[in-house]
Amino acid sequence: MQPGPTHLRPRVVIVGGGFGGIAAARGLRDVPVDILLIDRQNHHVFQPLLYQVATAMLASADIAAPIRSILRKQTRTVVAMGEVTGIDVEKRRVLTSSSRSELAVPYDYLVLATGVEQSYFGHDEFAAFAPGLKSLVDAQAVRAKILRAYERAEIEEDPSQHQDLLTFVLVGAGPTGVELAGAIAEMASITVRSDFRRIDPRKTRIVLLDSGPRILAGFDESLAQKAHARLTRLGVEIRTKTLVEDVDEKAVVAGGQSILCQNVLWTAGVKASPAGSWLRADTDRVGRVQVGPDLTLPGRPEVFVIGDTAVFEEKGKPLPGVAQVAIQQGRYVARAIAAQVVGRTLPHAFHYSDRGNMAVIGKNFAILESHRLKLSGLPAFAAWATIHVGFLPEHQSRGRVLVTWASAYFSGARAARLILNGRSGPRPQATTNLP
Amino acid sequence: MQPGPTHLRPRVVIVGGGFGGIAAARGLRDVPVDILLIDRQNHHVFQPLLYQVATAMLASADIAAPIRSILRKQTRTVVAMGEVTGIDVEKRRVLTSSSRSELAVPYDYLVLATGVEQSYFGHDEFAAFAPGLKSLVDAQAVRAKILRAYERAEIEEDPSQHQDLLTFVLVGAGPTGVELAGAIAEMASITVRSDFRRIDPRKTRIVLLDSGPRILAGFDESLAQKAHARLTRLGVEIRTKTLVEDVDEKAVVAGGQSILCQNVLWTAGVKASPAGSWLRADTDRVGRVQVGPDLTLPGRPEVFVIGDTAVFEEKGKPLPGVAQVAIQQGRYVARAIAAQVVGRTLPHAFHYSDRGNMAVIGKNFAILESHRLKLSGLPAFAAWATIHVGFLPEHQSRGRVLVTWASAYFSGARAARLILNGRSGPRPQATTNLP
Repeated sequence: MQPGPTHLRPRVVIVGGGFGGIAAARGLRDVPVDILLIDRQNHHVFQPLLYQVATAMLASADIAAPIRSILRKQTRTVVAMGEVTGIDVEKRRVLTSSSRSELAVPYDYLVLATGVEQSYFGHDEFAAFAPGLKSLVDAQAVRAKILRAYERAEIEEDPSQHQDLLTFVLVGAGPTGVELAGAIAEMASITVRSDFRRIDPRKTRIVLLDSGPRILAGFDESLAQKAHARLTRLGVEIRTKTLVEDVDEKAVVAGGQSILCQNVLWTAGVKASPAGSWLRADTDRVGRVQVGPDLTLPGRPEVFVIGDTAVFEEKGKPLPGVAQVAIQQGRYVARAIAAQVVGRTLPHAFHYSDRGNMAVIGKNFAILESHRLKLSGLPAFAAWATIHVGFLPEHQSRGRVLVTWASAYFSGARAARLILNGRSGPRPQATTNLP
Repeated sequence: MQPGPTHLRPRVVIVGGGFGGIAAARGLRDVPVDILLIDRQNHHVFQPLLYQVATAMLASADIAAPIRSILRKQTRTVVAMGEVTGIDVEKRRVLTSSSRSELAVPYDYLVLATGVEQSYFGHDEFAAFAPGLKSLVDAQAVRAKILRAYERAEIEEDPSQHQDLLTFVLVGAGPTGVELAGAIAEMASITVRSDFRRIDPRKTRIVLLDSGPRILAGFDESLAQKAHARLTRLGVEIRTKTLVEDVDEKAVVAGGQSILCQNVLWTAGVKASPAGSWLRADTDRVGRVQVGPDLTLPGRPEVFVIGDTAVFEEKGKPLPGVAQVAIQQGRYVARAIAAQVVGRTLPHAFHYSDRGNMAVIGKNFAILESHRLKLSGLPAFAAWATIHVGFLPEHQSRGRVLVTWASAYFSGARAARLILNGRSGPRPQATTNLP
């Protein structure tokens, strides 16, 4: 089962094929190690554009690529689709479960890059009514929820129900919440405007809630204010310092007020994947593993924890859960392992080089900060589009996304407006009543 | 609920948004009628390319478009997503069911274009192991099945299992079965060749079964022979005059022989949708409604049945279940209704103008027949690609498909190699064991 004569080469097991895991695997390309990368999915997802799949702009295939295809040229790298259930740090083994048997995979070096899950802050019962946005399956579910809202309103006999069906409450005003709000507003005012006969999609109401004092807490305040103004102009109602108290199929209760709505989307919080409990490690309150300056588990120099799975403080503040942190940490870990394998000195402690931050709000408007540069409006939008197309994982995706964006920019069309029912076969569920 | 003052205009209800239903709705664009088009899905699917979604070439969004977006410019056309449960031909009402209530929709003219479902010839128990290919959900399931076979083989410890995991049995050698066989062969020999470390995808075995004396019964025999030769060159084993006797998770029994395999795809037969039983009409043995020369139900001049839902004989032979028949019948019905509404004479009996037939086999090879023209090889492939891109329902899709095909043509890449688990959230099912 080894990909070659492994007795000569150390074995690196990477768990997770997100930004961190892929960066680590790529960084080890020319290092004499055997790599096994395990992920539950067969594909890497370009998370920053997940909201565009959720709002029917891009297709799932545009922002995802098979992990084994990304690492195709690394012949000493084996990619396995499977589920990790635990880690035996003493015996240096990754435990996996399967339909047939349990298997323990030995490692010399371990890289945990398992990411985060949506958190409902102890209210997991909200999940049934307020889907999150962490995977392609999530994005397709959110897309179906948004599109189905309009379909149901169009055939609803009782006009008093229309407003509830066309009210979207977004919980969490970080970049994902803000980008979703802008995209839904744009979809309502441009894309679906002329597609309905009995409802006016421009009556769509979008409420963006956040518990903090302002939106986009990770951004400079002047840029967040510009984003706030833009969202308001697009018709989005913003309520800050507002805690969500209850969510059910009819309404959201937040800040003591009830908002009647049938569409709630949740981007408010994250909790770490179970890596911390696998390692029995110290974690912060959301379950992220405390790592040393070299990203290793204290006392376990062969175990690295990176990206959203770890909490790493710089200047007294934990690093944000963004792609750049995961990528830089993945590369650092590859260098650290390479140094040990070929006997060189270890690199210095990990240092995050913050390249900046971007968020897009509807059409023609984005905010961008990078070092001292602060941009907003159309120039930031152009930069955002260029950078995001450039970073897509496959050449083919870039061409497809460019064609889609260019065509959507001029026509307002959104190509991926599909409600795909989960059932196979030609008889999907009935929806509501018909005219 | 009416889209306008309907007391003046006759109401046409169209059930089904496939090729036939869309053609009927479009044909009625300038006729003073109110149209209601009902479909269970929100989207029209360009069925001839469904096999490319199933084999990871195209994304679902590339070959589908929202029905309401296709009919956007027809302001007197209402599109409703919903489920029809029956028809009251006496009272001229379409019965619909919903989560809340039952509703009867009145009509002056009814067009039934509800298509066909996969048929397992009385062996519905095969369906669990042998998915069909009639909808986008089907195509995603087939795609996941094909890709998962390679994923499972790569992590399978027991090499004796590899061949079973990499054996694909395709039941039915009509155009869909032939096109699937060619695409899987191409995928195994080009696309995934360098993506695996422990298996050789070129060991993929593809067996194409048909109960008839030859493949592609609908085509001229000389072209079918060329397709047969091409498939054989691609390594596909073809077994004609072979009836499938049993299918389970381990094997297919056909023609008295057992083929060990874990991947069976079914394109062998169709049965009509329940329209025939809604109408209590005379049907043929697969449930297609017998219609008169004007495509109406005998004795019911206001009820039209078209496309795969109807059986219409010409020169003693029923018309084939292809898009062109449905489109021409949809247009004919629109003309027939228009004639009645504006008081002109009815058109002559429906006549099918056969424009020809095409099938593609892997890369650079297709067969094409049109009147006396018979083409095979690269010229037919070029014609096939041009015609299919030209007929895609939306401009944007054409651009995306062109980019994807062009890029795949030169790189061998298939962009849509995604296994999307049906579950929402970040914890999909475990697969088999890991290396």
